[in-house]
Amino acid sequence: MSLDELSRRAFRQVGTRVRRPDGVDKVTGRAMYGADATAPGMLWGAILRSPHPHARIRAIDTGAAEALKGVRAIVTGADFGEVEDEAIRDIRDNCMARDKALYDGHAVAAVAAVDAATARRALKLIRVDYEPLPHVIDVDEAMKPGAPVVLAGRVQESVAPGLSENVTSYCEFGHGDPEAGFASADKVIARSFRTAATHQGYIEPHACLASWAADGKADLWCCTQGQFMVRSVCAAIMGMEASQLRVTASEIGGGFGGKTTVFIEPVALMLSKKSGRPVKIVMSREEVFRATGPTVHTSSDIRIGMTRDGRITAAEAHLRYSGGAFPCATVEMGAQAAFAAYDLEHVRSHGWNVLTNRPKEAAYRAPGAPQSIYAVESVIDELCQHFGLDPLEVRLKNAARKGTRSSYGPTFPDIGLVATLEAAKAHPHYSAPLGPGQGRGVSCGFWFNFGGNTCVSLNVNTDGTVGVTEGNPDIGGSRASISLMAAEELGIPYDRVRTVVADTSSLGYNDVTDGSRVTFAVGLATIKAARAAIRVMCERAARIWGIDPEAVEWKDGAAVPAGPNAGKFPPMTLAEIAAVSAETGGPIAGHHEVNVDGAGVSFGVHIVDVEVDRETGATKILRYTVFQDAGKAVHPDYVEGQMQGGAVQGIGWALNEEYIYGADGRLQNPGFLDYRVPVASDLPPIEAVILEIPNPGHPYGVRGVGETGIVPPLAAIANAVSRAAGIRLCELPMSPPRILKALSGAG
Amino acid sequence: MSLDELSRRAFRQVGTRVRRPDGVDKVTGRAMYGADATAPGMLWGAILRSPHPHARIRAIDTGAAEALKGVRAIVTGADFGEVEDEAIRDIRDNCMARDKALYDGHAVAAVAAVDAATARRALKLIRVDYEPLPHVIDVDEAMKPGAPVVLAGRVQESVAPGLSENVTSYCEFGHGDPEAGFASADKVIARSFRTAATHQGYIEPHACLASWAADGKADLWCCTQGQFMVRSVCAAIMGMEASQLRVTASEIGGGFGGKTTVFIEPVALMLSKKSGRPVKIVMSREEVFRATGPTVHTSSDIRIGMTRDGRITAAEAHLRYSGGAFPCATVEMGAQAAFAAYDLEHVRSHGWNVLTNRPKEAAYRAPGAPQSIYAVESVIDELCQHFGLDPLEVRLKNAARKGTRSSYGPTFPDIGLVATLEAAKAHPHYSAPLGPGQGRGVSCGFWFNFGGNTCVSLNVNTDGTVGVTEGNPDIGGSRASISLMAAEELGIPYDRVRTVVADTSSLGYNDVTDGSRVTFAVGLATIKAARAAIRVMCERAARIWGIDPEAVEWKDGAAVPAGPNAGKFPPMTLAEIAAVSAETGGPIAGHHEVNVDGAGVSFGVHIVDVEVDRETGATKILRYTVFQDAGKAVHPDYVEGQMQGGAVQGIGWALNEEYIYGADGRLQNPGFLDYRVPVASDLPPIEAVILEIPNPGHPYGVRGVGETGIVPPLAAIANAVSRAAGIRLCELPMSPPRILKALSGAG
Repeated sequence: MSLDELSRRAFRQVGTRVRRPDGVDKVTGRAMYGADATAPGMLWGAILRSPHPHARIRAIDTGAAEALKGVRAIVTGADFGEVEDEAIRDIRDNCMARDKALYDGHAVAAVAAVDAATARRALKLIRVDYEPLPHVIDVDEAMKPGAPVVLAGRVQESVAPGLSENVTSYCEFGHGDPEAGFASADKVIARSFRTAATHQGYIEPHACLASWAADGKADLWCCTQGQFMVRSVCAAIMGMEASQLRVTASEIGGGFGGKTTVFIEPVALMLSKKSGRPVKIVMSREEVFRATGPTVHTSSDIRIGMTRDGRITAAEAHLRYSGGAFPCATVEMGAQAAFAAYDLEHVRSHGWNVLTNRPKEAAYRAPGAPQSIYAVESVIDELCQHFGLDPLEVRLKNAARKGTRSSYGPTFPDIGLVATLEAAKAHPHYSAPLGPGQGRGVSCGFWFNFGGNTCVSLNVNTDGTVGVTEGNPDIGGSRASISLMAAEELGIPYDRVRTVVADTSSLGYNDVTDGSRVTFAVGLATIKAARAAIRVMCERAARIWGIDPEAVEWKDGAAVPAGPNAGKFPPMTLAEIAAVSAETGGPIAGHHEVNVDGAGVSFGVHIVDVEVDRETGATKILRYTVFQDAGKAVHPDYVEGQMQGGAVQGIGWALNEEYIYGADGRLQNPGFLDYRVPVASDLPPIEAVILEIPNPGHPYGVRGVGETGIVPPLAAIANAVSRAAGIRLCELPMSPPRILKALSGAG
Repeated sequence: MSLDELSRRAFRQVGTRVRRPDGVDKVTGRAMYGADATAPGMLWGAILRSPHPHARIRAIDTGAAEALKGVRAIVTGADFGEVEDEAIRDIRDNCMARDKALYDGHAVAAVAAVDAATARRALKLIRVDYEPLPHVIDVDEAMKPGAPVVLAGRVQESVAPGLSENVTSYCEFGHGDPEAGFASADKVIARSFRTAATHQGYIEPHACLASWAADGKADLWCCTQGQFMVRSVCAAIMGMEASQLRVTASEIGGGFGGKTTVFIEPVALMLSKKSGRPVKIVMSREEVFRATGPTVHTSSDIRIGMTRDGRITAAEAHLRYSGGAFPCATVEMGAQAAFAAYDLEHVRSHGWNVLTNRPKEAAYRAPGAPQSIYAVESVIDELCQHFGLDPLEVRLKNAARKGTRSSYGPTFPDIGLVATLEAAKAHPHYSAPLGPGQGRGVSCGFWFNFGGNTCVSLNVNTDGTVGVTEGNPDIGGSRASISLMAAEELGIPYDRVRTVVADTSSLGYNDVTDGSRVTFAVGLATIKAARAAIRVMCERAARIWGIDPEAVEWKDGAAVPAGPNAGKFPPMTLAEIAAVSAETGGPIAGHHEVNVDGAGVSFGVHIVDVEVDRETGATKILRYTVFQDAGKAVHPDYVEGQMQGGAVQGIGWALNEEYIYGADGRLQNPGFLDYRVPVASDLPPIEAVILEIPNPGHPYGVRGVGETGIVPPLAAIANAVSRAAGIRLCELPMSPPRILKALSGAG
């Protein structure tokens, strides 16, 4: 189907706002989350964590803990064997420190005992002989020669000499000659920015139940965004074959990227292996903050040149990201995303990854992009202010579009940025009057979107209902969306389809639920699996009618004789074909396995009105509108939810959320009282405007929608605050103290 | 592959005695059985059972029970809605009585409470107003006009008038003119036989956990031989769509056919629906005996004519089976199986199903066949004694073989009876000397074997291991056998394959684990799924090599360039192809869905030596040898185990096991102390001789082996007792009192 046909296609099910299949279970408390799994004879695990941000572990004396009645196993880093792959080794060492504790909260030992209280009591009996070491928390400090070295020997070849060993990698993207471009600008603005580490703030703390068998097989139940990832990583850490580990994903109480890796699962497996009993570990909220993965914190320098009529002549970014105590590649995504919204002749971004004594970062919605784009969009806004130009006009003038050579390499196919900018410009919000002390900001946002390895099985039940088996935990309503696409393709009602998330032994490998890949990739595989099942059903009907299978078509949920046989037999519905399947060859199914390409990039534009209280420094969000190209919106409620949810999280980043460290290198706010996420009373209704520019890479034109929404709020709010308060802040969050300080500085 | 080629095929994995994957879990207690499932907020269910064998339920007062603190729901028959299908309606009414209690132990009400003790206490507070009715326990009594009518209105048209309404159906099989055949015999013997109802005696009582959601979806965990059967039956009883119910089969502690239906699952679902909480029900052993499904008890008349040289001229059977209070079709299988071992010109069997006030029968290993074949093989033995002929010679002379028109209709393809008889005749056991007071008996046995609806998915993991997903609970080592066949076909080691049993939402429909169908049918589907995966792997290798996929062959676990490309590239192993699957298109899998035909009938011959203690009436089994055609024996240990297990259960039926009812119609021995199954000290080592006559209906020649083994012991032991003690007993079990009585009668 051509893009044009796709845009005009009339869907019957896709695009409707059906009830989500997991909704009732979740609001009634019936849904089984990670902590709900139990097994006979189960032990409780607890983890001892380093109080030091950086310390050599000289010795661990577990004698007294082992002697405590009810303790069944104790695990330290020494229990884990060698791992070949460096990335997996880092995960292993993050789950349990070996010779050094690398951050406040780093696991150093774990206990399994008959109950949780005994396990916690045993932790207090473990004596760790620490040799505290100097620590470094800040990305810029950590880059300096002479800074305390977090992990030695991890520097890649491409990193220039003269920097601290904490700088482990360097990347560069772009084309053209920025210096030449700057020379042709009417104004060049260079600014430096900083963003704080933030946490995904999922409601459900990490929890798992591991059960290791004496023959080396194991089962694991956990809340995760990817049971297959858990299987690969844990199997590698435990030195077992993937097929010997069966991982079942529970319902998930939020992830946002933070559950795309493991923290406690290998520890639970090792405790189970040593104790011979199933072991459950449930993190406390404090543990979640101290020892799971927040975002990178960043420091960056942005330089952009513009002509007086709003043409960007050149753009350059220097990005320094720290994802804590282990190397990470987030800065590469930040460097690629920084200028992706623009069609630029001269553009370059540079990125450095830096180690600090903080917890190992994890993905968080569009990882790396919000930080770099915040800085870029702030400078563009300042240039618009300088020239007195309309900020949406300027973005439209420079917008990437079909054929644009992107700043990170690929040439864009059909993309939705221009349409999104035009929709924003035309929206009443953009022209609504502002009161005194109020400001309006806009920003673009971008995310790549992923495809990836995906398996779907679709089974036609004899009662005419259909089961879809997929392998990606549902973090945003994907079971409803997948069911909608199956129902659409098969031509049956939505409520006749039930989509479930299978464990790792019941389906082929699936990449993790991330990169906004699931509705796109699993949807594509589901549609193709449905088509395979339709082929089988047409064959069955042909067999019943005694005609050639080629002479049967599928229409409105039924096999219909076609061509020379048209009208010879009445249509046979899916339910009718299914009812007699045992007599026509057996059960009917369709399957599809694929590594999906063509996810289609996503752009968004946010408009926000704010009012800054000059006495308290508090910023109030007055009005907020999100515009985003969703491709075909399969379930508009969930698309809007993603757009609103991304905006809310971005508002939190912009105004309040940050990891606060003391001089002692310890996290000072590991709880929701001190780490303040936006609550309902902080927020206005957030209007979501969905644009549907079909993605040519998907049979229904679907593209990912989950991540782009967190990208624009940072700059949009910074730009609005700047215009409301007449000051430009270059550091996030723009918390009341920081705004007050800026106001007093400006005053 | 022709049969001849199949017989000569050299297997690498199939036929080896590998370790079963579930073995360690089961011996260490890690395996999760039905009673091991738990859920947060779970309630405990308990069931009130009728003390009367037959009573009208005038009223049930649940007020006092409802008022008990901790009681959350009470269910009676009135809670269950209408069901269209008669067979399902009977299951519903067996799970919970409606207007009448039909047998001692029939469920009349159920309670869900916060703990098991409260639930049991609540049962005592429920007042049932019974009107006791006359009852009938014995099959022959129940047939008489004027017998108490168990269920009215269930008589099929084919039943002749003049019998009690308890006789619900009649069937007839055979061909020729028996009377003409009897006329040409040198001797006709007619005898009447009786067999008792026996219980499968599985170790694990029925247990389940049901969780019903407010939106009408439900989850169910239970020990069962068929999660898809549980889904269909429970969904129909609960008036829900199959896709709304997800059933997960636990490990199973024995079934032998007794777990091919439901007893407590709909009750748990209804309690969960009413209470809004998960509900667990675990049966006691007494409940298992009183309220689950034993076998039919039977009464029969057999008449066989023989010439003096051992030719059977005619054979006729009249079979009367009672499977308790609901109609059942077991007698049809008994009537079909009765003479299946023989090539007869004149043969006819007649069967009647009769209702009695006993629990609804369930399948038990070769259901219906042991009872009729016991009677037939006893009369043949008596004829051999009469003429002084060798009982194996006589059976060989009359044996069914390829081309025989079977007594139940079909003409046999290649079958293994003659080879089995010859192996028995040549075995040292048959010619070993017997001591004084000892006797030797032989008998043939037969079972149909089933195929049926089967789905298998086979996934190739990126580490080169393979997952097989199948849908049949493993009651006899099938996961090992399925893994062996996958390994054989793929050319990889057994321990690289892991086979799991999926829940009903993770795979297409599978018939229940019964009829000895699983190794045959799931094995066939697994081999075909492996072949589908091999096709994909050859395509991937071809893509990597840049050659035509047709020019790639699969050899010894690797893709090999063939034809014009032979030798141009080194072979790529499964692991090598799997490792790069993401780059060549995505995950690799193979699937197969089929309703399998061609299961291939199975024959066995048993030889047993016994000694009868004339003082106590006790019979000691001295030596026991089983000969059986297994087709290709995939895992010889498990084939031997099936042959031995069948023999042991048959020994129990022959010598001790029976449901004993008092004059009050109540079961007097609902426990293992009074219902005596053979224990190890009762038994000699049982030698199992496997014959491998390939089944042409299976790619490796496999046929079912699980059921035939229980058929011959009854007559073999009766014939041995007859020869040892000089008396012929015509009733089972031949318990010590019954033997003493016969001896005193003979004396």
